[in-house]
Amino acid sequence: MSATVDDFVKRNETRFLDELLEFLRIPSISTLPEHRPDIARAAQFVADGLTRAGLENVEVVPTDKHPLVYADWLNAPGKPTVLCYGHYDVQPPDPLDLWKTPPFEPNIRDGNIYARGACDDKGQMYMHVKAMEALRSVHGGKLPVNVRFLVEGEEEVGGESISRYVPLHKQKLKADVALVSDTEMFADCVPTLCIGLRGLIYLEIEARGPARDLHSGVYGGAAPNAVYGLIELLAKAKDADGHIQIPGLTDDVIPPAAAELESWSRLPFSEEEFLRDQVGSSSLTGEPEQSVLERVWARPTFEVHGIAGGFASAGAKTVIPAKAVAKVSVRVVPKQNPEKVVASVRKWVASNTPKGIQTEVRVLSASPAAAVNPDHPAIAVAARVFGEVMGRPTVFTRGGGSIPIVGEFAEHLGIPTVLMGFGLPDDGLHSPNEKYRIANYYAGIRTIARFLEEYGRA
Amino acid sequence: MSATVDDFVKRNETRFLDELLEFLRIPSISTLPEHRPDIARAAQFVADGLTRAGLENVEVVPTDKHPLVYADWLNAPGKPTVLCYGHYDVQPPDPLDLWKTPPFEPNIRDGNIYARGACDDKGQMYMHVKAMEALRSVHGGKLPVNVRFLVEGEEEVGGESISRYVPLHKQKLKADVALVSDTEMFADCVPTLCIGLRGLIYLEIEARGPARDLHSGVYGGAAPNAVYGLIELLAKAKDADGHIQIPGLTDDVIPPAAAELESWSRLPFSEEEFLRDQVGSSSLTGEPEQSVLERVWARPTFEVHGIAGGFASAGAKTVIPAKAVAKVSVRVVPKQNPEKVVASVRKWVASNTPKGIQTEVRVLSASPAAAVNPDHPAIAVAARVFGEVMGRPTVFTRGGGSIPIVGEFAEHLGIPTVLMGFGLPDDGLHSPNEKYRIANYYAGIRTIARFLEEYGRA
Repeated sequence: MSATVDDFVKRNETRFLDELLEFLRIPSISTLPEHRPDIARAAQFVADGLTRAGLENVEVVPTDKHPLVYADWLNAPGKPTVLCYGHYDVQPPDPLDLWKTPPFEPNIRDGNIYARGACDDKGQMYMHVKAMEALRSVHGGKLPVNVRFLVEGEEEVGGESISRYVPLHKQKLKADVALVSDTEMFADCVPTLCIGLRGLIYLEIEARGPARDLHSGVYGGAAPNAVYGLIELLAKAKDADGHIQIPGLTDDVIPPAAAELESWSRLPFSEEEFLRDQVGSSSLTGEPEQSVLERVWARPTFEVHGIAGGFASAGAKTVIPAKAVAKVSVRVVPKQNPEKVVASVRKWVASNTPKGIQTEVRVLSASPAAAVNPDHPAIAVAARVFGEVMGRPTVFTRGGGSIPIVGEFAEHLGIPTVLMGFGLPDDGLHSPNEKYRIANYYAGIRTIARFLEEYGRA
Repeated sequence: MSATVDDFVKRNETRFLDELLEFLRIPSISTLPEHRPDIARAAQFVADGLTRAGLENVEVVPTDKHPLVYADWLNAPGKPTVLCYGHYDVQPPDPLDLWKTPPFEPNIRDGNIYARGACDDKGQMYMHVKAMEALRSVHGGKLPVNVRFLVEGEEEVGGESISRYVPLHKQKLKADVALVSDTEMFADCVPTLCIGLRGLIYLEIEARGPARDLHSGVYGGAAPNAVYGLIELLAKAKDADGHIQIPGLTDDVIPPAAAELESWSRLPFSEEEFLRDQVGSSSLTGEPEQSVLERVWARPTFEVHGIAGGFASAGAKTVIPAKAVAKVSVRVVPKQNPEKVVASVRKWVASNTPKGIQTEVRVLSASPAAAVNPDHPAIAVAARVFGEVMGRPTVFTRGGGSIPIVGEFAEHLGIPTVLMGFGLPDDGLHSPNEKYRIANYYAGIRTIARFLEEYGRA
């Protein structure tokens, strides 16, 4: 049976590629208002593709911002239901001058498609659509499981609409597992399932000193400086080795199990290459007693993304700033409660605010980490099939970043998510010359189709 | 004779005010390249004003950056020569949204002119020009002393051009004393001569971490953060009580003499009012064992004016910044050598740069502190006249700010400077809603004219 899916994909490669290129030509940049018509076209493109693939109840759902696309096929009684998620919106292409070919005129070079969204996430999302088509053609018009699709157009701008939609449509979205292809393989040709993601708490910490900006000559030595007060506070968040010093912030951190750590140690990872090819600093930093993968996957972080306040343009201005705001994030790991973390940060800020300074903490977003049990039947099937398609064993990794929808599916629908991605570490998501390997596009279609076949049998 | 000067000023108040308002409408912001044409207009405004006041050899002197304006009147043989200095450039007006009326559309409220530069220094500098006009009108077209003017357009950005000009034009600038009105009265209606100023060393400290901005999810925990690295470094500059921790930075500080400290203790100074009416923070800060006046007049400071780098706009962006730059100043007191201080800072930065970060220190300007002997004849005359005009004894203070030119006049021309200012402590120099009291503008013109009359007789 799986040979037949493979055959179907093989016979239709040219058409599948052409359809993706057409999708990639739509500049569906979600953050730029002038691209609203393109967003609408992209949503319709997804809806039309789902209709052609034989999905039912296809619907472009209006929201306060960008539409969702819903579809289902629920004619496999007794079989599990899989909720396929993806997004049709893309990041802005800036800086444009660094693109070798225009971001919305897909170009094929060296077996890759170069275009904004080629990998993130149009190319990966569209694999799901094509997998449905392949399955129906080899299964006499049927699918081996029940399927729902929910595709959004705001992933790159915070995903507010889908966050409101999911809790209000629990019955409509009822499923046994979610399937998301928006991650990457650990390395070229290494089948990878991501089974943990850090959560993200994004904060603004504001400091106020004098009532207005003051002349540093006239008042310097006796007046508090809001920027320096914020610096003094933030510097206390970590010690010189990167250990977070905020009480309570690492309380609920559970180290990865020995088996997981052992599996990470077998991953094709070179600290030296990571430093040289990806980070590019004079040395890596962070908690020395943790391996690099633990630091980025399994440890909370406290990061300052920037400070606004005072004078920072060209030239010299001798001001004692009245106000300063830092953009700060805390990444959290499984078992950490975002609300508890926020409370710990608030308490720490209050008790470490320097003399003469007043501080305020504002929470912009707070989402928990996500963890998937690798022994879940869907994960086990996905690992086996993915390994068979790629010809080597599937590895389990975590991701240091956050995919908030995974946590929302867990919280509101009570389901785990199979994070099965076909991107590569150098695909350049959010960067100029984003690409997606054509072979991975086809392998993804085959893997997803075979996963659903096997999961239907399980 | 002095009554006549007073009469002339009285009769011409409206015109004198209108002329100043016209001057204030020119946004001559020296640090912003887009204001170069305004700088040129402001220089020409000063030159035209000096010509109309009867000065000779009026010259707009081009420099590498912003022009100087020179003029003289040297037809009083046997009389001393006074070098009048001021600056026509202003600070940027940011933050614009805190101005009640636009910074370059002068607005008159409650007897004050509200505008950027109203006090610092256009309003005060222009008093000198108007004093010349008043003197010539009551002295039959003559002045009671020889006079030179040297007005610059880079005071707010380090004054490099005048620093190069003065040592190359010692003969052209030959004078017995300099007169500068760029300081303030200690309190409302208290005639004040400033006899000491702190010097200013303005630095940029740049930190570099990763080769490019990184995703804080993917790399957070193992990659250095340039903004945080800079925060960690800068936080070490002072202890919680404001004591500078940079080795060598307070080595050559000499405490004020007992007599000077005693005179300060008799000044009408209330720490409570200073905090409430001027600083407006929850408490004052700084070295607890020093009085507030010592902290702002006689102690070095380390101040961070702002940081650029990373993400600080509205919303959330999870970036690990590759680069960050802090604007930092060190104020120095008499006897401290700026070069030695810069060397101390460089050494401290190098030995305190966090792991994974590379730093660079750039010196934007460095000028020493200045001290004037209060027994100098010009100071004595100025103190007497100022006291007569204001109707109470003149007090001697220091200033925490820096007027680098005072040290340069001392070094290259061998002359002391009379620092006779008419600003008020709440005039908001460098702040939104900078103002200048109109009555002080007129009193300044009268005082300066009478000072020159009396100094010509001395």
